[in-house]
Amino acid sequence: MGYRILETDDIPAYLRERGHWDGATDPEVREVSDGNMNRVFLASSTDGTRSLAVKQALPWVRVAGPSWPMNPDRADAEARAYEQVAKVAPDKIPAIHGYDPENYALVMEDMSDLEVLRTLLNEGAAYGPDTSARIGEFVAQFSFATSDFGMESADRKALISASVSPELCKITEDVVLSEPYIEHEHNHWHEGLDDLAAEFRADARLRTEVADLRHTFMTSAQALLHGDLHTGSVMVGEREGAPVVRVFDPEFSFVGPIGYDLGLYWANVLVSEERARALGALTDHADQLRLSWEAFETEFRRLWPTRVDTFFDDAYLDRFLRRVWTESIGYAGTEIIRRIIGFAHLTDLTTLEDPVPASRRALLLGRELVVSREELKNPKDVRAVVQPT
Amino acid sequence: MGYRILETDDIPAYLRERGHWDGATDPEVREVSDGNMNRVFLASSTDGTRSLAVKQALPWVRVAGPSWPMNPDRADAEARAYEQVAKVAPDKIPAIHGYDPENYALVMEDMSDLEVLRTLLNEGAAYGPDTSARIGEFVAQFSFATSDFGMESADRKALISASVSPELCKITEDVVLSEPYIEHEHNHWHEGLDDLAAEFRADARLRTEVADLRHTFMTSAQALLHGDLHTGSVMVGEREGAPVVRVFDPEFSFVGPIGYDLGLYWANVLVSEERARALGALTDHADQLRLSWEAFETEFRRLWPTRVDTFFDDAYLDRFLRRVWTESIGYAGTEIIRRIIGFAHLTDLTTLEDPVPASRRALLLGRELVVSREELKNPKDVRAVVQPT
Repeated sequence: MGYRILETDDIPAYLRERGHWDGATDPEVREVSDGNMNRVFLASSTDGTRSLAVKQALPWVRVAGPSWPMNPDRADAEARAYEQVAKVAPDKIPAIHGYDPENYALVMEDMSDLEVLRTLLNEGAAYGPDTSARIGEFVAQFSFATSDFGMESADRKALISASVSPELCKITEDVVLSEPYIEHEHNHWHEGLDDLAAEFRADARLRTEVADLRHTFMTSAQALLHGDLHTGSVMVGEREGAPVVRVFDPEFSFVGPIGYDLGLYWANVLVSEERARALGALTDHADQLRLSWEAFETEFRRLWPTRVDTFFDDAYLDRFLRRVWTESIGYAGTEIIRRIIGFAHLTDLTTLEDPVPASRRALLLGRELVVSREELKNPKDVRAVVQPT
Repeated sequence: MGYRILETDDIPAYLRERGHWDGATDPEVREVSDGNMNRVFLASSTDGTRSLAVKQALPWVRVAGPSWPMNPDRADAEARAYEQVAKVAPDKIPAIHGYDPENYALVMEDMSDLEVLRTLLNEGAAYGPDTSARIGEFVAQFSFATSDFGMESADRKALISASVSPELCKITEDVVLSEPYIEHEHNHWHEGLDDLAAEFRADARLRTEVADLRHTFMTSAQALLHGDLHTGSVMVGEREGAPVVRVFDPEFSFVGPIGYDLGLYWANVLVSEERARALGALTDHADQLRLSWEAFETEFRRLWPTRVDTFFDDAYLDRFLRRVWTESIGYAGTEIIRRIIGFAHLTDLTTLEDPVPASRRALLLGRELVVSREELKNPKDVRAVVQPT
């Protein structure tokens, strides 16, 4: 591919060359690659006072190796997303020190003092009062700024042109928004779900509703999105006594429907609730969809008076937010379903001793969110589906 | 702008240089520029056996001169649209012999034996049985081919990226989809419409519905469109005894909602009907919306089995076509309104001895199409609005 694949030993010289390191002694470097796709290194000064992370996209899927090629320009999408978020919500992403497009490498804040939200939840932690609200605000700030409300028409067209992401969008179009509803070699599931998987594949109504959400995903250029906003893309912790929430890994970023970001988060929230219920350990899970939606809506409404295009009036805002809500609910449903009978599953459920009961509940909830999304008007209506009284 | 502005005398050498002319004698050339924006030359052999048209985009609006600059890359958009249409509906556009992107010049079929549809209609001609059906088919063939149904996902992303058209889209967003509803120096109207123009500006419901259509125009990347499909963008005539319909001037082409193309045509159809009614000369005007919609729907359904992405099922097609219908009705309404109280008016109405009664009818019709588009389910419902029984 004509670029340098960085190894652990290359990192000190690389950081110096790029102007990120000028100490007398080289940093200590260790590889901490964790996701499926990329390599990540941490570089720290011997005295522990400075550290950086280097993330490089490989020309293949890291866990599979060169036999599964993957265009490394997904790192461009990631850098572009971080650049846009940095303008409006710098407190909700890692600090980005530089992007090297020739080598598809980002140099960024070391977040190894924080924890991945999914990991914490799986260990039994509560969300706490801030996490979901910050996520809702993140989506509002990022999407407003990159919508036709936050950006001049001509700048928006340039953003749309620059931000197409054919390869990664195709993954979502296939793995999330079609395969689980047809026979496909990618799909797998626990045998205790055989009946539901077959029912879903035969469900004409479900198929048509998913097709609608899929076409919206492919055509609705509302705003630049994160594109993969699950609980494994969020780090949380505390610094100097204050809670910290950081969204990361926006390599699936593209211009699409805002509801896709909210919906992905909600799917993960609802699945985490099923896990907690299965373990008899429900804490604040049931409130997270509401908290993130309310924070999203509040923040979007707070930004509304700053819109660049005042032809869009307050009545239109109400309608627009209703549409975002409805689409978010639909995407939440598709994300739950694909995480149980599709290609990539969630440890929230797979690590349960008996994943079947929680998975069945989640699958049926997912279906209901997709097919009834027009009728579910608010978080309370969703609660009534999750926990019928 | 660093390119050659062609004058009449330059055309023979230009055509030879570009490989379009190799006869012993130079062609005879005359300028026939007619639209607001560009120059058009016709070049014919002395014996009349061969002729070509040369269309060049100027770096300004032709009728205004250099004081109103306009990016000539609109010619790129035009060439791109013709290139796509040529693959699927070559019989419905002029033959394109070549595009010269350095000089923003198209060399194309001489259509001077045909007539502009609007001109004929204004002179009292009927549409005839073919015209609107061919337009409907044109929209179906062009939009299907450039939608996610006719084009692989990755190719579509490349098309979207290449086809953004900031400057010309902005004209539509402003002149068509906002200015008529606010105070704006561009707007003007016959004094007999003062009350309606004021009512429309004060009409909160209308404003919100137009805002919705406007945001859809800005964000819905369904297919590559013509972008300006009025009756002045259609030439009709007869060749060798057969009717000929040619759509031209797609310089406003961009990836947007299919309903925008159908809606523009319908607005012009409905305004032509108001003119004919005012003159007591109604012929086949009342049937044209139905004919073009039915031809569109029939052709789109005929192409459906060839779709590249079979996850989209027949039930989804029904839903998709309903959406296209509804949006088309809405855009028809906005186009009627802007052509009467906005910037650029239609000779259909302005050349009437008393344009007021027809303009009032048309304005009220336009409003009704916008605000009631969800309730108008088919061409018959529209007829009931145009001519209440």
